[in-house]
Amino acid sequence: MAVERPGEAVIALSVGGVCATDLELCKGYMGFRGVLGHEWVGRVVEAADPALVGARVVGDINCACGVCPTCLAGRPTHCPHRTVLGIDGRDGAFAERFTLPAANLHVVPDGVSDEAAVFVEPLAAALEILEQVHVRPGTRAVVLGVGRLGQLVARVLALTGAEVAAVSRNPARLDLLPKGIARLAAEDADQAAGADLVVDCTGSAAGLATATRLVRPRGTLVMKTTVHAPEAVTPIPWVLDEITVVGSRCGPFAPALRLLERGLVDPTPLVSARYPLARGVEALEHAAHAVKVLLTP
Amino acid sequence: MAVERPGEAVIALSVGGVCATDLELCKGYMGFRGVLGHEWVGRVVEAADPALVGARVVGDINCACGVCPTCLAGRPTHCPHRTVLGIDGRDGAFAERFTLPAANLHVVPDGVSDEAAVFVEPLAAALEILEQVHVRPGTRAVVLGVGRLGQLVARVLALTGAEVAAVSRNPARLDLLPKGIARLAAEDADQAAGADLVVDCTGSAAGLATATRLVRPRGTLVMKTTVHAPEAVTPIPWVLDEITVVGSRCGPFAPALRLLERGLVDPTPLVSARYPLARGVEALEHAAHAVKVLLTP
Repeated sequence: MAVERPGEAVIALSVGGVCATDLELCKGYMGFRGVLGHEWVGRVVEAADPALVGARVVGDINCACGVCPTCLAGRPTHCPHRTVLGIDGRDGAFAERFTLPAANLHVVPDGVSDEAAVFVEPLAAALEILEQVHVRPGTRAVVLGVGRLGQLVARVLALTGAEVAAVSRNPARLDLLPKGIARLAAEDADQAAGADLVVDCTGSAAGLATATRLVRPRGTLVMKTTVHAPEAVTPIPWVLDEITVVGSRCGPFAPALRLLERGLVDPTPLVSARYPLARGVEALEHAAHAVKVLLTP
Repeated sequence: MAVERPGEAVIALSVGGVCATDLELCKGYMGFRGVLGHEWVGRVVEAADPALVGARVVGDINCACGVCPTCLAGRPTHCPHRTVLGIDGRDGAFAERFTLPAANLHVVPDGVSDEAAVFVEPLAAALEILEQVHVRPGTRAVVLGVGRLGQLVARVLALTGAEVAAVSRNPARLDLLPKGIARLAAEDADQAAGADLVVDCTGSAAGLATATRLVRPRGTLVMKTTVHAPEAVTPIPWVLDEITVVGSRCGPFAPALRLLERGLVDPTPLVSARYPLARGVEALEHAAHAVKVLLTP
């Protein structure tokens, strides 16, 4: 496979991770047609910079133009001309080889295993909350939904010293949470009412309604998933209670790698199953009711 | 009229202002039954503190308990036990005499006319945006809807040095804006796309959709009206574009009085008509299609 565009590196997949977004893309989200896969760790097999060849890497999935006003304003992940690996205009990582701009790559520190590094993309997305919202040690936070992303969000919020409660309909998923995070069944969610911060990882209108009920006046509600069903919400309580609602998407890779290197977040207990690429369809079917399914060449 | 509750003052109305909320209350909003009126200036005729008697005053409309966790956390305007003058559990100001806790009152400086002071409550609500959002001198801001509240919001945003554009379907209302604020007809709203801050004062789902279209990625959308129709919105673009949505309600009276005293905001050109209290029904009917209708005893 030759490098098609200047500045692109060719990467050999080591491990890929199936994300809820992949399942939505299969249903037609974004109208994407092509190779899936945006959570991955791999090795560089071709790059203009010889020092990069052979390196074990992860990479930012948003490929920005670098020259438009949005890029020059420091918001490349919102570049209107961007392609997004395995999501929008660019084949993804669920393949033996794929390409990404070399500038997007981050070398994985030696102490971080492939099975941990494959979580860098969603861990970065969880960290995006801390880029957007000032979470204080005294904050009372609630995470709604502890699937793939909610698990990482709960872990990242816990690092701040904040009081963190996680709500799920699935007791087995609550059991995966590290100690020190309160676990609430869905029917007990109201025990967490009056929260300073509620992060909705359910992607459902029902989750957003629960989040609105649990957040205190002048509190913050984070919508932390791009796969919200196109159900609508009535925003009246947000005005009366002066809620701040924050949409949150992709986040910074470098701090995610630092947290893994320091052993402050361990995502590996979230791995539910491993499949070879050749059984990719089966892997996607399994992922619909698992926390994290991995793919290997 | 005797003071009914300890700490309450009796006030004689000088001028009242009809608000969009009054019109909604007439249609059943909040289930309120009682005397309307929460925009007003008056004179104290009875109070425990003799120094207050005779003073020309305006007053915070939220009457908080002062002892619950929300009050003690410094959020008295969100006290769950609060009554709200002319809106919730407390008769309002469209009467010859009404009561309010003396602690809620602010003395009006001599240089501020009654016709300016009657705008303190909505001007404070406009200032609440600056309490919640850091509006910078370089901010590109758009105000959707320039009726009663939008007019004041545009004036307050202009004080920061920010670039301000106002959008309205009503050319006569755009003509009321002070110079230096760009005026856009509704069909030209997209000329203001890419804004850092969009304040929706329309209270309609259509306004919220336009605001979502005009705000830039990672920008801020303020919902500045409590009378949003119970139409629902689809929040997907807020996640993809990482928009911050801020619900905004009542604001601080003291800075509003300072701006009037300094002559930095002149709301008096917004007065459309004056009615005596005895013609209150007529005044409310007129207010449905006017910028600001005043009432006098």
